[in-house]
Amino acid sequence: MDSAAFIAATRYCRRKVVTRHLDAMEFRHAIPQGSLVELVAQVTHTGRTSMRVLVNLYREDMYSDERELACTGTFTLVALDDAGQPVAVPALNTAEERALAPHR
Amino acid sequence: MDSAAFIAATRYCRRKVVTRHLDAMEFRHAIPQGSLVELVAQVTHTGRTSMRVLVNLYREDMYSDERELACTGTFTLVALDDAGQPVAVPALNTAEERALAPHR
Amino acid sequence: MDSAAFIAATRYCRRKVVTRHLDAMEFRHAIPQGSLVELVAQVTHTGRTSMRVLVNLYREDMYSDERELACTGTFTLVALDDAGQPVAVPALNTAEERALAPHR
Amino acid sequence: MDSAAFIAATRYCRRKVVTRHLDAMEFRHAIPQGSLVELVAQVTHTGRTSMRVLVNLYREDMYSDERELACTGTFTLVALDDAGQPVAVPALNTAEERALAPHR
Amino acid sequence: MDSAAFIAATRYCRRKVVTRHLDAMEFRHAIPQGSLVELVAQVTHTGRTSMRVLVNLYREDMYSDERELACTGTFTLVALDDAGQPVAVPALNTAEERALAPHR
Amino acid sequence: MDSAAFIAATRYCRRKVVTRHLDAMEFRHAIPQGSLVELVAQVTHTGRTSMRVLVNLYREDMYSDERELACTGTFTLVALDDAGQPVAVPALNTAEERALAPHR
Repeated sequence: MDSAAFIAATRYCRRKVVTRHLDAMEFRHAIPQGSLVELVAQVTHTGRTSMRVLVNLYREDMYSDERELACTGTFTLVALDDAGQPVAVPALNTAEERALAPHR
Repeated sequence: MDSAAFIAATRYCRRKVVTRHLDAMEFRHAIPQGSLVELVAQVTHTGRTSMRVLVNLYREDMYSDERELACTGTFTLVALDDAGQPVAVPALNTAEERALAPHR
Repeated sequence: MDSAAFIAATRYCRRKVVTRHLDAMEFRHAIPQGSLVELVAQVTHTGRTSMRVLVNLYREDMYSDERELACTGTFTLVALDDAGQPVAVPALNTAEERALAPHR
Repeated sequence: MDSAAFIAATRYCRRKVVTRHLDAMEFRHAIPQGSLVELVAQVTHTGRTSMRVLVNLYREDMYSDERELACTGTFTLVALDDAGQPVAVPALNTAEERALAPHR
Repeated sequence: MDSAAFIAATRYCRRKVVTRHLDAMEFRHAIPQGSLVELVAQVTHTGRTSMRVLVNLYREDMYSDERELACTGTFTLVALDDAGQPVAVPALNTAEERALAPHR
Repeated sequence: MDSAAFIAATRYCRRKVVTRHLDAMEFRHAIPQGSLVELVAQVTHTGRTSMRVLVNLYREDMYSDERELACTGTFTLVALDDAGQPVAVPALNTAEERALAPHR
């Protein structure tokens, strides 16, 4: 899930990013062997140099249409310039943020 | 790319599947280290027991918006029943196939 | 860090265990390539069927004595019987728990 | 199989090589878990800057002498100089090529 | 190197095998990154239920013909029947053994 | 086990180290799948530029307190300076060595 957060944040700001914080996580369902796993990551909020990324992990049976949200994590990552110092990221459009609000 | 084809075919028929054929592939661009890679796989055609899956591999710079189709592969997979014998798969809707025609 | 928590909890109760919860985590220091990493995991508190495990990740230079606590995580795991149902774990001795209190 | 092609081509020309083309492949036999797999790769034809490499994958039971050719692939790789430009490779001896002709 | 010894012994007796002993090993040359590595393993001696396997590790430059024996190991493996008990292996032909004698 | 030896030697001398020799090893017990494995490595003797490291591998059942020494190895590693030449390591205190004597 941290890889998915890393890719989403990198794509958002096109900068080197590091993870600074991970919110508490609940593991709702175990993931049996032989499951398909889908990770969906999305930047849901931005600060001046930080991005909050919501990662949903869906578990899916290989041989049925059963599918469920198994786990949700919220990561905070910071963008760094070439000298390793925090650097500003583009602000997320307010309308976009409002649409994503339930996730915040 | 074979994993992406495997997942797309499994999801399509919810059966055990095996790869039978891979069409010739052209590697248009090398993939430098430190690239993001995105695989997009789609069932584009079905026979009685077989599925043709198109896999596109996109390469993307981590730190710019540069992105390109680096490689395209077409896999044919067959669905198997519990005894390991080929088994019928749902036919792909003709309208869907027509929409996907340029890929065939 | 989840592997370290898993091993500590398994050793404590000698049962199958699953992770149910991960407390919020702060990543204090990045971990440069070529570091040694040491994980120290300890059961610090028990419920009827659950164990709380504190995991400290220390980062250490390979070629100097520099060493620091890079990250701390607290995992809650539940013991399961053969039918996959939560099962009681031995209570942690109160004196032991008191000694571990600052970690709780 | 691409690794085997890569090693055979590298050894042939002692240059950096990249894969440009993979001929269509037939997967004749599935490879059950617990099989031994042997890859045999051979440069069978050369162009000015390219090498054609035939890769045969044999599957072998661990606990019997059963062994079969499971899959055959033909890769085309190009040699590159230090600037990343295609560079001439030694010509394969014609007599050698004739001996390898059935594979071409 | 233990994998190579395992495969050579499995192929020799077509039985489940376990490693029992590894002779002292000298590491003559370090193996720089970007080397090709070739492992050659051969059963050189048999006891009633055991096989001695010589494994030679050759290191080879990718971009020159430089090649050297970097390391040699001698493993003793025992064949097991389905109950996990040592089981007789075919005797190595004496003439074969004599030919391999310098390795013993 | 070589990784454990590498870490113990690196921590002892805080230098680049390479393995030069491995003493003969006896594999007393097989390690069934689903075991926990604990590696304990300790510098037991020093030469001018070399360190002898004893590595004990303990195997432990996941679901019982059964635990046993499965394998013991003794590695000799040499410290290297930045030019790749052997370089002196701190001498191990004689009292310490005496205490470790049974391992030598």
